[in-house]
Amino acid sequence: MGVVIKSIEFTIPKNKENLNDLQRENPNWDVKKIYLKTGIKNRYLSKKDDDIITLSVKSAKKILRNFNKNKINFLIFVTQTSNYKFPSLACILQNKLNLRKNIQAFDINMGCSGFIYALNLGEKIINSGQGKNGLIICSDVYTKYIDKKNSTCRPIFSDASSAIILSKSNYNSIKNFSFGTDGSGAVDLNLKENSKNIFMDGAKVALFAMKRVPESVKEILKKTHNKIVDIDKFIFHQASKFVLNNIYSILKINKKKIFENYKYLGNTTSSSIPIALKVASSKKILKNNHKIILCGFGVGLSWASVLLKWKKINL
Amino acid sequence: MGVVIKSIEFTIPKNKENLNDLQRENPNWDVKKIYLKTGIKNRYLSKKDDDIITLSVKSAKKILRNFNKNKINFLIFVTQTSNYKFPSLACILQNKLNLRKNIQAFDINMGCSGFIYALNLGEKIINSGQGKNGLIICSDVYTKYIDKKNSTCRPIFSDASSAIILSKSNYNSIKNFSFGTDGSGAVDLNLKENSKNIFMDGAKVALFAMKRVPESVKEILKKTHNKIVDIDKFIFHQASKFVLNNIYSILKINKKKIFENYKYLGNTTSSSIPIALKVASSKKILKNNHKIILCGFGVGLSWASVLLKWKKINL
Repeated sequence: MGVVIKSIEFTIPKNKENLNDLQRENPNWDVKKIYLKTGIKNRYLSKKDDDIITLSVKSAKKILRNFNKNKINFLIFVTQTSNYKFPSLACILQNKLNLRKNIQAFDINMGCSGFIYALNLGEKIINSGQGKNGLIICSDVYTKYIDKKNSTCRPIFSDASSAIILSKSNYNSIKNFSFGTDGSGAVDLNLKENSKNIFMDGAKVALFAMKRVPESVKEILKKTHNKIVDIDKFIFHQASKFVLNNIYSILKINKKKIFENYKYLGNTTSSSIPIALKVASSKKILKNNHKIILCGFGVGLSWASVLLKWKKINL
Repeated sequence: MGVVIKSIEFTIPKNKENLNDLQRENPNWDVKKIYLKTGIKNRYLSKKDDDIITLSVKSAKKILRNFNKNKINFLIFVTQTSNYKFPSLACILQNKLNLRKNIQAFDINMGCSGFIYALNLGEKIINSGQGKNGLIICSDVYTKYIDKKNSTCRPIFSDASSAIILSKSNYNSIKNFSFGTDGSGAVDLNLKENSKNIFMDGAKVALFAMKRVPESVKEILKKTHNKIVDIDKFIFHQASKFVLNNIYSILKINKKKIFENYKYLGNTTSSSIPIALKVASSKKILKNNHKIILCGFGVGLSWASVLLKWKKINL
């Protein structure tokens, strides 16, 4: 027995911003240089009236079109940009989605490693027998907390939400996890309460990722007795071109084995891996029984990897 | 094999406020009537320079005096009053406590049901084999978000932190959980971002607790084939005298089987159950093999119960 990702849906706001928009508003920015580093052409911003609840309801309603909401036993919500200090938005979503009341529902405050964390907790809940089906929702609206003049964050982050259904299965898709935390880097990427401007030391966060992601991938490989060549696909958090290319190079990953979509989407924080999984699956890049390594990394600083044996999701 | 609570420590700020203080500052309040309902004489408020990090570090350092910090495999931090939107304070605490870096560390945003949630996730992580020892820290500073004129919240809430070590054991202490979520009541107890004043509809939250806590306790009893008379001790979230007395009455619980400490401590949200467990254990009210039901309830609205078979903690 095991656990599989049954389906994934996501929502991207319609409001698009491209490099020309950035240049027009900030004539002193070297937008070409920025693009060479980020590799990001477009980003998506939620409207004023949209927040993580409205974005999340959209993804959740899509996924619940093809899954009986009364079968959901738990809801894990991953976010860092709630417009409430409390309650957990998972509770608000239980009500908005009309899920059963005898379920556990909680928020975890995690950024770009958050989906892997939720996947781990969901898998543990299911494998313990406490529930058969769980809904994970990831959503952040970083763009609401980035000043228009913030040249480190603004060219990178997009708003998004994603919804993922995890289910008990005869197929055991989720093989092994590896986790890491280094709070000494908390100062390098953070948002204080009442602040409207995320702080990121881009160079330090990039160096962190280039050190910790390869270590984490190697740990997963070692734990599961695999080598880089045994893995079919690598899908990493879509941080930026500079960070990802360095990681591929350090790990000597063949570019045919990667999937990326930051160019036209930006960095959607905790939704970036679920969105990439869904898009790669839709494009038939992911195939049944593929060995896939996912790694999320960022805010915390925190990192988390998982080895999946892929089982085709509902498309 | 199973999981036990190995030790509990807590921290209460020194700054005490009593009913006379409330009366002096609010001459129009009927403080006697308030006391008849709340049963709370004293509450404790963190100083301006204290926050959930400083409070949590104190509890954590106490507990790590008698436990090797290098054996901690995961850190779950329960809070709703962080002074950061991100990162997770669990990451900041990993660094401040000098815990190992190859651990999982995450925050869950839960209130008075939060400790039971963390206990459940910790037990699942340990029973899955992912770690042998975990540190749970609960901390909130509600008083920093309560206006001096807020007559619903000010007479009730105290600041506190608690630290709990969970460990793999031959003794299986944690028997069964029950959870519930009703986000339709999210409006009855919440704190919006940038607000400095918690809103609580006291009557609605009391009615909720009087309905859901008895249901939850009955569910745990049914799941574990016990009756009220089979349970040695009941320790519920220390909400207030009115709420607790009604719950005892509805469930027909003999008062000898309860433990309470709200009178001189107030409602410490997610720390209230850990603190009660520690105090009751120190007073030898809890004994080895006692069957204990804990129930946390509040913000969300959310509720969670667990049946423990008590194993003496380190004192």
